[in-house]
Formats: sequence, C-alpha cells, structure tokens
Amino acid sequence: MTAPLRVALLGCGTVGSQVLRLISEQSDDLTARIGRRVEVAGIAVRRPAHHADVPADLLTTDAHALVTRDDVDLVVEVIGGIEPARTLMLAAFEAGKSVVSANKALLAEDGVALHAAAAKAGVDLYYEAAVAGAIPLLRPLRESLAGDQIRRVVGIVNGTTNYILSRMAETGAGFAEALAEATELGYAEADPTADVDGFDAAAKAAILASLAFHTPVTASDVHREGISAVSATDVARAAEIGCTVKLLAICERVTGPNGDAMSDTVAVRVHPAMIPTSHPLAAVGGAFNAVFVEAEAAGQLMFYGQGAGGEPTASAVLGDLVAVARNRLAGAAGQSSTGYANLAVRPMDETPTRYHVSLDVADKPGVLATVAHEFAVHDVSISTVRQDGSGDAATLVIVTHSAPDAALSATIAALRDMPAVRGVTSVLRVEGLS
Amino acid sequence: MTAPLRVALLGCGTVGSQVLRLISEQSDDLTARIGRRVEVAGIAVRRPAHHADVPADLLTTDAHALVTRDDVDLVVEVIGGIEPARTLMLAAFEAGKSVVSANKALLAEDGVALHAAAAKAGVDLYYEAAVAGAIPLLRPLRESLAGDQIRRVVGIVNGTTNYILSRMAETGAGFAEALAEATELGYAEADPTADVDGFDAAAKAAILASLAFHTPVTASDVHREGISAVSATDVARAAEIGCTVKLLAICERVTGPNGDAMSDTVAVRVHPAMIPTSHPLAAVGGAFNAVFVEAEAAGQLMFYGQGAGGEPTASAVLGDLVAVARNRLAGAAGQSSTGYANLAVRPMDETPTRYHVSLDVADKPGVLATVAHEFAVHDVSISTVRQDGSGDAATLVIVTHSAPDAALSATIAALRDMPAVRGVTSVLRVEGLS
Repeated sequence: MTAPLRVALLGCGTVGSQVLRLISEQSDDLTARIGRRVEVAGIAVRRPAHHADVPADLLTTDAHALVTRDDVDLVVEVIGGIEPARTLMLAAFEAGKSVVSANKALLAEDGVALHAAAAKAGVDLYYEAAVAGAIPLLRPLRESLAGDQIRRVVGIVNGTTNYILSRMAETGAGFAEALAEATELGYAEADPTADVDGFDAAAKAAILASLAFHTPVTASDVHREGISAVSATDVARAAEIGCTVKLLAICERVTGPNGDAMSDTVAVRVHPAMIPTSHPLAAVGGAFNAVFVEAEAAGQLMFYGQGAGGEPTASAVLGDLVAVARNRLAGAAGQSSTGYANLAVRPMDETPTRYHVSLDVADKPGVLATVAHEFAVHDVSISTVRQDGSGDAATLVIVTHSAPDAALSATIAALRDMPAVRGVTSVLRVEGLS
Repeated sequence: MTAPLRVALLGCGTVGSQVLRLISEQSDDLTARIGRRVEVAGIAVRRPAHHADVPADLLTTDAHALVTRDDVDLVVEVIGGIEPARTLMLAAFEAGKSVVSANKALLAEDGVALHAAAAKAGVDLYYEAAVAGAIPLLRPLRESLAGDQIRRVVGIVNGTTNYILSRMAETGAGFAEALAEATELGYAEADPTADVDGFDAAAKAAILASLAFHTPVTASDVHREGISAVSATDVARAAEIGCTVKLLAICERVTGPNGDAMSDTVAVRVHPAMIPTSHPLAAVGGAFNAVFVEAEAAGQLMFYGQGAGGEPTASAVLGDLVAVARNRLAGAAGQSSTGYANLAVRPMDETPTRYHVSLDVADKPGVLATVAHEFAVHDVSISTVRQDGSGDAATLVIVTHSAPDAALSATIAALRDMPAVRGVTSVLRVEGLS
C-alpha cells in the first residue's frame, strides 16, 4: 500500500480538536476522495498536559521541528495570531510543505508575503476557514467567479456583533445590556474588543477584498468602526424607515474617473449601517454569517451559514486539506490569490456613502431651510426628510443621497454647532437603499 | 510570447454569445488569472447565417472536426440536449481536450460514463453552469465540503416554477392563470413541460445528489412531481399553517438500519411542498434559485442567486474555463466527481415524508375518530389536527408526522373512499417543520 499523507497539526483547541476528530471519523471517505490515506504525524501544543484525550506520542511543544520534519507532508495551522504562526508557516513553505490555515489576522496582515513564499516554494496556502467559518466563500470568489468581474462584496462576518445587534432590535435594549447578555451566554468573549470594535470583521474584509479584486489589501487599509456607539435610538430609527442595523464588511470596486478599469479603486470598510429589511442580509440573525456578492455577469449571489465554532471551522479546514492533498499528489499547486490588478485603495473620506441623520430642532419656521442649507453647503444632496413636530420641539429625520464620506461627516459636525439644532440623536450610514 | 490557449465553442445562443462576450471583454483579466491568453479557435453552430455578429471565419457547422482540431486546447459545450452533445464531448476527451459544459440533461443521464471517459483521458469535465446558473454550488459541494459528510441538499432550482408559485401566493391565482402570465412575460417557455413537470429540476437533483453523496444518481432515479396539480386551495392552506408552497429538489442521505454508513441509502425527489415561511428557502421569490445544504460538521449553509439567464450562466462557464485552463497548464486534472460511496437509491415509497391533508367532512360526532383511525391503520402518526365547523359540514386540516411515502399515499387513497369524507381538498407534502 502506498504511504499515507502525513499532516502536522499546529494547535489543538476548539478548532484543532475538531480537525483531529474529523480526520479520524472521516478516514475512509478522505482516503477515497484524496486517493491516499491521511495520517496525523504530530500535534504541536503549548501545554501537552492539557490534552490528555490525545495520544501522548503525537504531542510536541516543538512546533518548528514538527513542521520541518521529513515525514510531514502537509501542515494545518490553527493556533491563530501573528507569531509564532507566521514563522512556522514560512518554515513549512521553505521545507516544501503546503499549509492550510484558519488564521484571519495573519492572512489579513501579511497575505502578500505569505502567498509569495508559498508560490516560490511551489506549494499551496489555503485558508477558507479564516473567513465566515464553514461557508464556502474564498473558493467561490477565487475560482467560481474567476471569469467574472466582482463589483461588491457585503458581508455580515462577525457572529458576536450580529447577535448583539439582533438582540437590540428584538428587545429594545442598549448596547451595554445586549453585550452583557451575549457575554453571559458565551456569544461574546471576556474581552470582546476584537469583535465589538470591528477588528475581526476588518481582517476578514481585507481577505475578501484581496481575493475579489486581485489587489493586495491589508487590515490597516480597512476603515473600521465598531458597534459600541450604536444606540437603542439608532435601532429604533432604523425600524421607522423599514431598516435594520447590521455591522457590515463592505468591499467595493469604485469606477475610476476615466471609466477604464485601470483607474478603478477599491474601498474597504467595516461599520454599522442601516439596511432595508427586504435586503437578503437583513434576515441574517443571531450568530449566523452571510456574504452578499455582486458581479458583472453573475449578478447577485448570497452565501449563508455558521460563521464560527469548532465544527464548522474544522469542516472548512478539512475541505482545504483534501484540495491541498490532491494538489500534492498531482504534483501541482492549486489556484491561488493573485494581486495582479493592484488597484489603489480609496481612503474612507473619498468613499461614497449615504447617511441617515436624526436631529432634535426647535419647531419654528425656517429651521428646515437652515438645516437643508448646511447639507447644500457641503454639496450633499438630500433624499428624504421627515419632520415630526411636538410642541416647540421637532424631530428631523434625513436620509441623504450618496456623497463622499468626508462631506457627510463635515455636514454632521456643522449641524452639531448650529443653534437651531438641539441635538443630533442618531447618525448612521445607510446601505442597500435604491 | 507563449502560445494562447485555444477554445472551441459549441453553440452560440443565449449562453454561448455571452461566453464569447466575456472571453473578449475580460481578456486581460483572464490572461492574468490563467497565466496564458485565451483565444476562441472556432464556434460550431447549426446555421452560420444566423450569427452575423460573430466573425465569419470562426464559424463552422462541423462541430466534430472543430473539437478534434490540433489547435484546440479546451472545449466549451453550450448546445444542450443529449445528442450530438454526448458524441462531441466523448470525441473531445479522446482527443485529450478538457470540456466545460452547461448541459444538465446530459450530465444527469450519463454523468458516470462521461466522467469515466474524462478520467481515462486525464482531462477535466466541469459543469458548474448546469445547476443553478451562476450560483457556485457544485465546486463547494465537490471541494469545500470534501472533508465533511453532507446529509441533505434542498433546493429551489427552477426559476419558472418558482415564479409561478410566487405569483399564485401573491395574487391567489390558480396554476393555469399564473402559468399564462409567466409565459406572457417570458419566464416560461412556449412548451413549459420541462419546467412545470419537474424534468429540469430532476436533472439538477440527480447532479447534486451524485456530488453530495459520491454516488451515481441519474435523472431516472429521481422521483418527480411537477406543479400543475398545485391549486389555489393548496396555496391558501399553506398560508393558514404559516407555510408557503415551493417546488423542491430534495437529496437526502437516509441512515441505514444498522447505523453504519455502508447501509445508508440516498433518496432523491422533486415535488411541490409546503415549507414554513421562517425557512430560509421560503423567502426565495420570483426567478431566483437557492440551495440549502446540511452537513455533519458545517451545519446549515445556503447558496442564493440567479439560476438562469445568459450572463449568469456564462459567468459560471468562465469560472470553470479558468480552472480547466489552469489545470491544463499545470499538467494535472482537477478534483472530479467520485462515485466511490455507491449508496443504494431508496425508492420514493420507502422515503420518509410528511403530509398536509385538508378534508371536507360531515360535521357530526365520530368523524374525526373515523378519520384518525384510518391514519392509524396505515401506521401514520398525526402531528396536528384543526377542525373548522360550519353548519353540517366541517373541514379537517391534518399534518402528519414522518412516515414512508407509500403509507401516506395509501392513507389518502383510503380517505377518498370513506363515506364520511365529502372531499379531499388539498394534499401536499410538508418539509422543514421541526
């Protein structure tokens, strides 16, 4: 019998232990699908004593020695974080081993260098599990749509924030209260910063944009706003205009001034926004993820599923493992990310967005004119205005047309200083309105 | 400069003309993504005079000569139907050329033999466009979920019937009226048989089941019922129990009697069914397609998009073309469909389903007991009963638990013969109820 393919597993936590389980339980199927048996050669962990359920002879604390061992064919990296994952991955490539990773932070920070190192070594770097767990997303973007031009990718890619925003909409709770509930139920980590402040979503947005637009985009290129400033008022205002509030990761290709593809730019941002309840993303509740893709020829597509968790993430890792194993047996690396288009990243200030603004104003003649004038001064065109009077106070609810984000935020700043405006009670971007 | 990859295009109708357009418009991107320029070597059509917009020197009526030409590297087949597509595809394989196809009928009838011929020749057979147009579906099933075990695939894969059923729900119209409207608007063909009677969906179900369960399934293995018998009453009854009527393609892996995977069977069927409005598939309206997948580790996934049309279908063809071209340059065939699991196909009679039944009965004591007895005789357990009285007549609305389909249909037949039952006003299967 031919020798099995031997896998080095780096990390054995929530995801790693499920990868281990699936490799064992699906053993016969994997053999049939790959054409060769898969065997775990070793598992690198920090504290072997914490892994009593794993055969002790497989455990090692020397991850570097493991990935470079001659009897290891493929490496699965599920430790996360930048280091030592990066050094280990580069060592694996140099030793001629393909890598399957679930590491969004590393890929978002250093994807270009890692892809270059893999290409130089003629091996694969696959990381479907890094974005939206089990939802097949990177492979469709990279391969299925390879003959099309992707215009927009809009996703709900963080389950924690989606759970919090869903609860705020359902119960009318404020952010702090909903976060406390999410923490208690285990949907939010003890330190929720990475989720709540949008770092997790921004890393995923960078990876999605890189693949969709064949352009290197890192996490630092992504404009990032979290959900901690989203108020119960924002959520209520959204409902009034038939919308719901979601934390969106938005990757757009913006047509250049002279209309040729070379002058196109790419805008990548993560921020809360109101979207119409009729939008397919609006119905994505709780800890689910979904990503909406618009391409020139394919039109609108949506991918939906569980975005996190040990089992779904391990499913994505295993799918990549089969592909990488087959590529190795075929003696050829698979389809990879390319950065050939190398489009410029457009700063947030110049990115076209739309705003919803709600103002408390004095209910007297001329206030609307004054407010409207302020929008006009900043060259921002108003789409709809609703004025609700009550005694000597009134509420103005304004939705703008699309304008550069800087013009919109400058308008808001100016409104805050206007004597006629008693308070700006809600400001949120709006997406998906026609 | 290296020689371009040369493509033979078979067929130049709705899809073929869009393939041609995309190859030309995306030329630079395709070159960058493949690593080699793509060029059209020739286009086989039946009536060259009908294609005045295509360079005349590319047109030929001799498709067989075209696919076997030495200067042709890859073949794109978008003529559809069984012959001459099959003969041409086999000739292409024999001449060492990979094929990209959008031909669901042929793949559903003869997929096993075609895959074997491609494998023997060491070339690729890709056909993402054959199911659900531009929605990346076959690649995720084949590759992304290759390390997981798929339990169910449930899809709305025919836009025409989905449009008709959506309109019946919106307007209260009957089938004939909604079909007439669909025909007038171009959503249904002059001869709507393939769509309305479920042949189109059955072919797609066969392809999906083959990939999902690594088991050869042909269109003739698929239990097929169309929507022409769906009445306005069925649609109204569905709404009463919080459901909506959809034509579903359902592919299930049914656990075998002794619980080991070897004794599992596969059940594949196409029929109208009531699904709860809260189910993700319920919101899929008009001509859109969506496919819901349940896998052991990945959990629930959904894929949504445009299921037909020249442009979306051409996008899927181009994605395959890029993959097949890259495989050719790498000198290795890509991941293919495998039938290694070779599970038995379970006949519809033995497939577990649930029924919704609505009966007009005499409103007198004992009728419910008599009716309930009939279900019990057939070993069918009742989930819910609703009795609406009016004068001397009453309506019984019954939803069953899961039972073998034969037991359910035998129950219905017996009910029709009962003196106490004045009429069976609606019978429809129910899916997705917990």
